[in-house]
Amino acid sequence: MPNPTAAMLVIGDEILSGRTQDTNTNHLAVKLTEIGIDLREVRVVGDEPADIVAAVNALRARFVYVFTSGGIGPTHDDITADCIATAFGVGIDVREDARAILATNYKNPDKELNEARLRMARIPDGASLIDNPISKAPGFRLGNVHVMAGVPLIFKSMLESILPTLTGGEPLLSVTVRIEAPEGDIAAHLGKLAKATPSLSFGSYPFIQNGVFGCNIVVRGTDKVKLKQAEQSLARLVEKLS
Amino acid sequence: MPNPTAAMLVIGDEILSGRTQDTNTNHLAVKLTEIGIDLREVRVVGDEPADIVAAVNALRARFVYVFTSGGIGPTHDDITADCIATAFGVGIDVREDARAILATNYKNPDKELNEARLRMARIPDGASLIDNPISKAPGFRLGNVHVMAGVPLIFKSMLESILPTLTGGEPLLSVTVRIEAPEGDIAAHLGKLAKATPSLSFGSYPFIQNGVFGCNIVVRGTDKVKLKQAEQSLARLVEKLS
Repeated sequence: MPNPTAAMLVIGDEILSGRTQDTNTNHLAVKLTEIGIDLREVRVVGDEPADIVAAVNALRARFVYVFTSGGIGPTHDDITADCIATAFGVGIDVREDARAILATNYKNPDKELNEARLRMARIPDGASLIDNPISKAPGFRLGNVHVMAGVPLIFKSMLESILPTLTGGEPLLSVTVRIEAPEGDIAAHLGKLAKATPSLSFGSYPFIQNGVFGCNIVVRGTDKVKLKQAEQSLARLVEKLS
Repeated sequence: MPNPTAAMLVIGDEILSGRTQDTNTNHLAVKLTEIGIDLREVRVVGDEPADIVAAVNALRARFVYVFTSGGIGPTHDDITADCIATAFGVGIDVREDARAILATNYKNPDKELNEARLRMARIPDGASLIDNPISKAPGFRLGNVHVMAGVPLIFKSMLESILPTLTGGEPLLSVTVRIEAPEGDIAAHLGKLAKATPSLSFGSYPFIQNGVFGCNIVVRGTDKVKLKQAEQSLARLVEKLS
């Protein structure tokens, strides 16, 4: 059976303007790979309701799991929860359990839990909450869409709390062989190896280091024995080149 | 007149598996912002022809400029050029000018310019070449789609060579005000300010540093005077909070 698929939707003008380098996608990718869920697409959109709604609906229809990051804070540009409600065609309002969790974050909740902060307790109808050990304001899951914060520390802790709820497949294993020769020298051999072993995927990732052109060959698959054979075949190639 | 729009398409299994952190998008975003082109969407897809073709066609229809990174090397997993040809419905073959450029990279091109490397001279019909000062193998532009390498150093140098060919708009200016208070304390004020100044965009980007919750307020727009006024209004807010 093929592994479950997933998509990531990063929401925020700050990524598209170049102000902020997204790192949540890479973290998610590493974690999903470990448990055998195949991240198949990533999209980044800005703080535009129509763009967010369209992306959520496109991705949740095509992939088993969807993860979003960004736009669930207390300020006017935090519109993700409303857009998720719109995408699913459900209502949204302050929910008592979310409000109670938020309140635990403040010494004087009657005063500090102001209108802006209460926005973070607005949860689309039918959603379940995602734990946020860092700053309390919860994320939520609605259908197959998991809505999480953009601040990397909070994104990571929310992801930790949902990983046990996901159904993974066979973990994708990989071996990497570093070759200090330009890709073009080994491409033919690599192509043959890939063709002969269709159950493994062979990626070639070129690098330039101190003026030397080389490449890392990454072989991925779920079969340990075949991976080992491919690694040995590549090691023989490295010997021949040196 | 609104600024021209753009989309980025990152191609490669290595991004989706988490092996590689994409940094080309951030670099592109910074450069486009400087010249008044609005990056509006980013997609990442794997080395799957159908996914690449669908993404190229979706993005080139909706945005003024499309930029791609990855998949134009000499190995079997480098399929971007073929997918672009498919997306545009045009042919693709080794082109003499691209072959001649590639040949300058080798001491003995008759021997070194092997079948694998010649793949890098396969250019879709009707495309114009994009200069690659680092490793010679050219990128190309077809219609509004600019196809570049995934290796960051080469991506950057290719981008430098096409930036002068793009038509920008009004550069987006921004000011950042750092506030050492949680977002929720300033959200109401910020929302009012944003409502009162619709020609500017106000983004709030929370951070956690040494256990302190704070936020950077980034105000963006093309009107220097209004930006200055917004900055002063936020500075007064910071004073009031301290």
